[in-house]
Amino acid sequence: METLRLYDFLPSGNGYKIRLLLTQLGMPFEWVEVNITKNETRTPEFLSKNPNGKIPLLEIEPGKYLAESNAILMYLSEGTEFLPYDRYLRAQVLQWLFFEQYSHEPFIATSRYWISILGKAEEYREAIEQKREPGYAALGLMENHLKSHIFLVADRYTIADIALFAYTHVAGEGGFDLTLFPSIQAWIERVKTQSRYISITQEM
Amino acid sequence: METLRLYDFLPSGNGYKIRLLLTQLGMPFEWVEVNITKNETRTPEFLSKNPNGKIPLLEIEPGKYLAESNAILMYLSEGTEFLPYDRYLRAQVLQWLFFEQYSHEPFIATSRYWISILGKAEEYREAIEQKREPGYAALGLMENHLKSHIFLVADRYTIADIALFAYTHVAGEGGFDLTLFPSIQAWIERVKTQSRYISITQEM
Repeated sequence: METLRLYDFLPSGNGYKIRLLLTQLGMPFEWVEVNITKNETRTPEFLSKNPNGKIPLLEIEPGKYLAESNAILMYLSEGTEFLPYDRYLRAQVLQWLFFEQYSHEPFIATSRYWISILGKAEEYREAIEQKREPGYAALGLMENHLKSHIFLVADRYTIADIALFAYTHVAGEGGFDLTLFPSIQAWIERVKTQSRYISITQEM
Repeated sequence: METLRLYDFLPSGNGYKIRLLLTQLGMPFEWVEVNITKNETRTPEFLSKNPNGKIPLLEIEPGKYLAESNAILMYLSEGTEFLPYDRYLRAQVLQWLFFEQYSHEPFIATSRYWISILGKAEEYREAIEQKREPGYAALGLMENHLKSHIFLVADRYTIADIALFAYTHVAGEGGFDLTLFPSIQAWIERVKTQSRYISITQEM
């Protein structure tokens, strides 16, 4: 099999999802850093690989690419312990993945990007304010679910946990107070004890 | 098999995706209208079915629910002609589904909602302005792809087409000018000629 190549940016939670899963799967990969704060995803060369100009981007074999972090998680986890085989359980995993991209990431990850990656909290103050309520709503929904579930789907660690963990565990860097969510905090600790866990700051 | 029940709102493109696929699959379903403009997705009763308070919501059997339109498309299309069997092709379908929810729907569907469903173009003028550039970027990406492909994935009609068609073909109702995108327009006509096609305004 060809060695996978991952185009990624270390602080990215979306990229971290893929780094974490590949590491937990024990799959070797080549890691290529693309600095999104320097518009390196907007060069003609990068756009020829992903016309949407975003990382993470997985090169499966030379010239064969796959974009969208949660599509990559689905692709890599198929047939492994990280994705249930049952059809309805798999659909529930997908429900969480779409929830993450639509109702969670645009508020929590974006706030973190402005505040902690770009360091421009003051410049983006009003926009950050607007992200507060929907971001807390997403965390509230997770908290309610995790009150009675040890993991998001099927009471075991799956890519649904990886996808939601990526930006939830660093939500504080976006100004969200996780101490309000004890069940999320306990779940974060459970994720961190999974075998072959790596942190989001772990250099590749 | 139990009869499927779909909680939906007729003008919703996300709901239309499911109506269209179920009809094309020839699967009977019970249709329950939930008026989102009257906050009917925010009642305690509806929130007990979907804590995220959104339609479409599919009741697979009594008390067993599935939310997120694109997760529902994946669930229903598995093992049918609407989802490729090949692993990389399926991943490409998912790539388009996540693109739709992250880079397309929040701009194009939201503009249409404010302008044509709520009829509040003036009130939301500034917000609509901000959706213009990313909305056109999404349409531009689709146009480029459809210049050399008759459908989005594998040169055949799949749920990727259903997911992107839902809000693209009514983008004009959100103030986007589709005459700028001839390849999208030709693709829209191809989708409309698929067997058992129904329109977004077709009463259930």
